[in-house]
Amino acid sequence: MRKRILTGITTTGTPHIGNYLGAIKPALELAGPENDSYFFLADYHALIKQTDPTEIEKSVKNVALAWLSSGLDCNQSHFYRQSDIPEVHELTWILNCSAAKGLLNRAHAYKALVAENAQSQNDDDKAINMGLFSYPVLMAADILIFSATHVPVGPDQAQHMEMARDIAGKFNHTYSNVLTIPEGIIQNDISVPGIDGRKMSKSYQNIIPFLSSEKVLQKSIAKIVTNSLEPGQPKDPKNCTLFQLYSFFASQEDVDSMHQAYKDGIGWGDAKKELYKVINDEIIPIRERYLDLNSQSDLLNDLFSDGARKVRPQAKELVAKLREAIGISKVE
Amino acid sequence: MRKRILTGITTTGTPHIGNYLGAIKPALELAGPENDSYFFLADYHALIKQTDPTEIEKSVKNVALAWLSSGLDCNQSHFYRQSDIPEVHELTWILNCSAAKGLLNRAHAYKALVAENAQSQNDDDKAINMGLFSYPVLMAADILIFSATHVPVGPDQAQHMEMARDIAGKFNHTYSNVLTIPEGIIQNDISVPGIDGRKMSKSYQNIIPFLSSEKVLQKSIAKIVTNSLEPGQPKDPKNCTLFQLYSFFASQEDVDSMHQAYKDGIGWGDAKKELYKVINDEIIPIRERYLDLNSQSDLLNDLFSDGARKVRPQAKELVAKLREAIGISKVE
Repeated sequence: MRKRILTGITTTGTPHIGNYLGAIKPALELAGPENDSYFFLADYHALIKQTDPTEIEKSVKNVALAWLSSGLDCNQSHFYRQSDIPEVHELTWILNCSAAKGLLNRAHAYKALVAENAQSQNDDDKAINMGLFSYPVLMAADILIFSATHVPVGPDQAQHMEMARDIAGKFNHTYSNVLTIPEGIIQNDISVPGIDGRKMSKSYQNIIPFLSSEKVLQKSIAKIVTNSLEPGQPKDPKNCTLFQLYSFFASQEDVDSMHQAYKDGIGWGDAKKELYKVINDEIIPIRERYLDLNSQSDLLNDLFSDGARKVRPQAKELVAKLREAIGISKVE
Repeated sequence: MRKRILTGITTTGTPHIGNYLGAIKPALELAGPENDSYFFLADYHALIKQTDPTEIEKSVKNVALAWLSSGLDCNQSHFYRQSDIPEVHELTWILNCSAAKGLLNRAHAYKALVAENAQSQNDDDKAINMGLFSYPVLMAADILIFSATHVPVGPDQAQHMEMARDIAGKFNHTYSNVLTIPEGIIQNDISVPGIDGRKMSKSYQNIIPFLSSEKVLQKSIAKIVTNSLEPGQPKDPKNCTLFQLYSFFASQEDVDSMHQAYKDGIGWGDAKKELYKVINDEIIPIRERYLDLNSQSDLLNDLFSDGARKVRPQAKELVAKLREAIGISKVE
């Protein structure tokens, strides 16, 4: 049976090299013609933490362009915005009535905030909104609305999958088997180091930009923190940020050569040039596409409309079935 | 300024005399031509506690017919099903992101269940679903989606109004003044006694039916619990279930006469006949309309469609404004 693989795309901030390696690339690799692929921009999730409308809109645009430039093919797969499928919210309410509150109490993201509050001797729920508390139900709806059979998840999202399965199972048990119980495809967590060696993250301000100009990319790579070994002194590729980043982009052959070059005492400046070259080589065609797509006014709005037009009938059909099952339909 | 008065109608069970006196009659009295009146059947709320689809559907039908028979005029007011306005669920999510979880923790209905669980030494959240926990947000959406200015509330719902105002205020403060802050119209709690003297409630099995046949009404009144005073012995109208019920239906003149009759020692049988007469007199035209409406196949479905067609454009317009405010609209 063909798999129906659904991938949710977080729309916060501007994608960096860490997002490209950790999220975009592995997801696109799964989207072969042997499967049905669904990609959606989870814009309504972004509302939980982002109250600046300009940022919300900008992120949707930047994230969408990053994925499209990286090879997301709207003809081979389904690509849509969550907010263009309002049936998701109706399903969310239906699922709320099958979701135990205790299940949500145990959600990792919520528990982490409660723990933080406890540490600073605040109320448990200080500064926590209902969006944050209940978003695993919205996430379950995102998955279940299109009867996805498979969902790629990183280790930190495995719990969301379990919750979606749990809630769907409860619904099917209470009413009838309308919902498809999805399976997680556990993906390795690709930890990409930032320029200071910590995990690459916007909040650490240690990112290498993804769709910037060559100049900005080069400058950012120049800032990668290294030790003070001089050219000519042998260097250790182990636990070296620069070497790790190089390994993500270079061929095995080039990685081996670089390994040798470290032992031979390559200077950090030269190593950075090599790193810039492999990253930029991979990005050149992506950047080209990005500039091209970005220059087409209304392209994204058209793609979003097309995407919604393609998939929304399925969402409507499912909601109609669900309404029948729960007794909210025509009165006899 | 014209008030826009919104009344939510619970769709559980079959309405009894207590519902008629406590909810239907006072709400219809408010719906004069000097105001815009919105009445909606809160069918998606019923899902929290009722998992039998047949019961859900039956209740919607019975409740709708009870209100229509009692005088709800679909031409003078807006009458629709909550489930025909899916924009309510999209608004719910938007409001979730402006609703503090701490606010929901303090909801009376939720706290009562937690207290029950504590008493039986269960987990706090045992058997509580997310529908129950989060329904005040759905209720806020019900009110805010049509920019209601006034909402009649009984004392036990005053908190819901406060929550709706709080969440709407938070949204307006964060974004812009898109939401109308509603005011509660506090209504006296009309406590109607059942045949055993306790508050009339389906769960006590002490109800007097509302749209039954005359025979069933008569039988039910015959079962009203009285004391064992014989005809001829003076009786006390104070704290007398029968007298209380009589007062709800009779004119002041008749109430005064009955008061005298009690002192003169009217027999319980005769008093019950009088009670039956005043109740039945009020119900006769309602019962007529009920039988008439009930015989028209598809009448309700047509009314529901008409109602939704009339009000849904307003809901869509509000959601479009909200999307603009939060940054979920067209990409520039």
